[in-house]
Amino acid sequence: MARNTQVSADLDAPPITRMLADFVANHPSRGWSDAVDHEAHRTFMNWIGCAVGASRHEAATTALAAVRMLQPAAQASVLGRDEKVDMASAALLNGISSHTFDFDDTHLKTIIHPAGPVASALLALAEQLDGATGRQLIDALVLGIDVSCRIGNVMYPDHYDRGWHITGSTGMLGAAAGCARLLGLDPQRTAMALGIAASQPVGMREQFGTMTKPFHPGGAARAGLMAALMAKHGYTASARALEAPRGFVQTVSTKCDWREATDELGRRFEISFNSYKPFACGIVIHPSIDACAQLAEQGVRPEDVARIELKVHPLVLELTGRKEPADGLQAKFSVYHGCAAGLTFGRAGEDEFSDEIVNRPDMVALRRKVVATVDGAIEEAGADVTAVLNDGRRVHIFVEHAIGSLQKPMSDAQLEAKFHGLADPVLGSPATAQLIAACRQAGAAPDVRALAELAVPR
Amino acid sequence: MARNTQVSADLDAPPITRMLADFVANHPSRGWSDAVDHEAHRTFMNWIGCAVGASRHEAATTALAAVRMLQPAAQASVLGRDEKVDMASAALLNGISSHTFDFDDTHLKTIIHPAGPVASALLALAEQLDGATGRQLIDALVLGIDVSCRIGNVMYPDHYDRGWHITGSTGMLGAAAGCARLLGLDPQRTAMALGIAASQPVGMREQFGTMTKPFHPGGAARAGLMAALMAKHGYTASARALEAPRGFVQTVSTKCDWREATDELGRRFEISFNSYKPFACGIVIHPSIDACAQLAEQGVRPEDVARIELKVHPLVLELTGRKEPADGLQAKFSVYHGCAAGLTFGRAGEDEFSDEIVNRPDMVALRRKVVATVDGAIEEAGADVTAVLNDGRRVHIFVEHAIGSLQKPMSDAQLEAKFHGLADPVLGSPATAQLIAACRQAGAAPDVRALAELAVPR
Repeated sequence: MARNTQVSADLDAPPITRMLADFVANHPSRGWSDAVDHEAHRTFMNWIGCAVGASRHEAATTALAAVRMLQPAAQASVLGRDEKVDMASAALLNGISSHTFDFDDTHLKTIIHPAGPVASALLALAEQLDGATGRQLIDALVLGIDVSCRIGNVMYPDHYDRGWHITGSTGMLGAAAGCARLLGLDPQRTAMALGIAASQPVGMREQFGTMTKPFHPGGAARAGLMAALMAKHGYTASARALEAPRGFVQTVSTKCDWREATDELGRRFEISFNSYKPFACGIVIHPSIDACAQLAEQGVRPEDVARIELKVHPLVLELTGRKEPADGLQAKFSVYHGCAAGLTFGRAGEDEFSDEIVNRPDMVALRRKVVATVDGAIEEAGADVTAVLNDGRRVHIFVEHAIGSLQKPMSDAQLEAKFHGLADPVLGSPATAQLIAACRQAGAAPDVRALAELAVPR
Repeated sequence: MARNTQVSADLDAPPITRMLADFVANHPSRGWSDAVDHEAHRTFMNWIGCAVGASRHEAATTALAAVRMLQPAAQASVLGRDEKVDMASAALLNGISSHTFDFDDTHLKTIIHPAGPVASALLALAEQLDGATGRQLIDALVLGIDVSCRIGNVMYPDHYDRGWHITGSTGMLGAAAGCARLLGLDPQRTAMALGIAASQPVGMREQFGTMTKPFHPGGAARAGLMAALMAKHGYTASARALEAPRGFVQTVSTKCDWREATDELGRRFEISFNSYKPFACGIVIHPSIDACAQLAEQGVRPEDVARIELKVHPLVLELTGRKEPADGLQAKFSVYHGCAAGLTFGRAGEDEFSDEIVNRPDMVALRRKVVATVDGAIEEAGADVTAVLNDGRRVHIFVEHAIGSLQKPMSDAQLEAKFHGLADPVLGSPATAQLIAACRQAGAAPDVRALAELAVPR
């Protein structure tokens, strides 16, 4: 049997489960600045674009095949597809597809991808609730993301370093919080929803490079939605599930900075720190791709290159050091392929991570010319790239902050262009334009179902 | 972003994910002794009895109310009830009810309750598969339980000490393994099922005393079943999801005794070490209840008692030290109430943990007479009890191993009596007797659906 050996338990943690529940249940609708509300719309739009874009990927189709074995009721939309499934399965499937391309939003302080778990649960639930408005949806999105990212702040980086894929291991809390808000639960039942969700973190980093990585936000979305439904009907959990010595945070992290959970609660919103990827891969490669795309802009052609000298922060090679990726999924964890794509195409969208492109002989040859070294002087957000040409010339690019960072955010127009790139092949360009317009106005939508309909092929 | 700081990662762990997958996929049907097969039948029967018994509990009804919101297809039985739901929800609900009374089986080496996650997933899946036989079900049960308990052995006690409710945080692996076997998946896809499940541990000990404790085996059952369905359709995961440095085991435990996963694989079956509770509460209280029931047998009456001196292992008070339980659920974590029940009733079934009995004035008064002290000389399996009577006499009982332990197992007849106590109020005694007979012969059943039908009220 068990020994009494939990090391250095914090017995005096503040009651953050109740504090967050009170906040989620009671904060006024649109109780934040226009800038925060605008960011919420950008987050929502980017999430839909990613989910629609990956809706025919094998991860989406195989997960759907499994869900079909449950003979699900036609309650909620599978984005980008004409099937409808029960709302819990829709949360799962949309969460999977939104993260499949690794192209979704990033809360840079924690590298959480917050929309996948939260928005996937919310849209599915909102579709099933008669008459949920876009305002209710956006409110729940802001509050849900605040909860998951704040708990991420409490635990990051220790929790992530241990091996947890923090998107899925905090996302169930945001999904539960958002769904509790959408259901109109009181603070007590909202705390129960958080509590039930707290027992269900989803995701290990070992899964990176497999379909189970995008499963994590999907699983978290489903867990959070079901937790809220159970709490609505009176299911109970510990009201200290987050902070107790054997509660969630202390069990999965040695870093427990409780102030991050509640400091400036209701005044600082974590969705403000959300960012969107211009490139369809892990964020740590972005500065290197950006630098190589800038080389291309300066006229450097792949066939002229003898060698690419890349200096990066150690984390870049730790996370994305795959030299010989065998397929598109693996290539997302290869800074070498990222550099080759940036130089060859000037971009690195989902197409540039297709199996076909990854295995093209010129791409294989070019990525073998990349010599990556670790340089402690380079920040994680930066990259230092020198192209050494066949004629001996050297072209140098230093990127301090890549496009898509908080310092150099994508513009609304760039986000829309990204959305078209993802959704046009699925919905067609005119329907995609309609969907974009609806996303921009999501908070004013009288009924969320009409918006969801636009994300389904006609 | 993340630092490169996972402490003392084990880079050379053996490939246990693949080894266990090969075993589950390839081990011959009934490839074990009669004793093992008999134990599997006892485990299965005890699990059904517990699930039927708790099928009207608030935990079961509120979870069912949430599941109803999904408009589930009528695929599989909710034990003890006449509703049918989709198989994933049936796995969830039967897992919840089987653990609600804390009366289910216990793998004493790890205090895992293995049947809840594994059997709940298997029966739901078997009902939905046309023509699954009882033999296939029992085979999958033995193999699934072997997987979850072996992984428990790898990590116990550190994993449990950290705060994980090990039943739900290993159970999803057993459920996935068992369901993969029942689906006839090959070793490769079985490894994927284990991998997908490895990202979904369920359960924190802080939830003890709330409905989320029994949620844990239910959530694990659902997760494991869905993982197997996804793997069947080609969903991928890491083939080193269990053992890799940022895989499941190293993320959730510092103890990683890999030999426990595969030593004597196929020769030693962990289900052999399963036990069944005579009392409807946490196993650490059992020796104390047993001792007090023995006092009653010796003629000690509650009204004669001035004080009960109880000496126990430190863990008993750590886990079950609640002095003033407010209701039945809390009383399951009160050795004080356990002693009062043992002395008053000579037993401690679910009735003796009802809110009504827990709050009866004579019970409140009697449990306040229990003076519990920690004694390092007492083993966890033991208890030392002295009743000090009003006339000054002292009656002493020392229990080395409680009834229900491996050393003093419940007989088949005692198990059947326990089953009647649980199921008679739900199904009626004649139908319960039929169900018991069917459980005894489960491995010979031509179609599992007929057996499941017997667990539903007519």
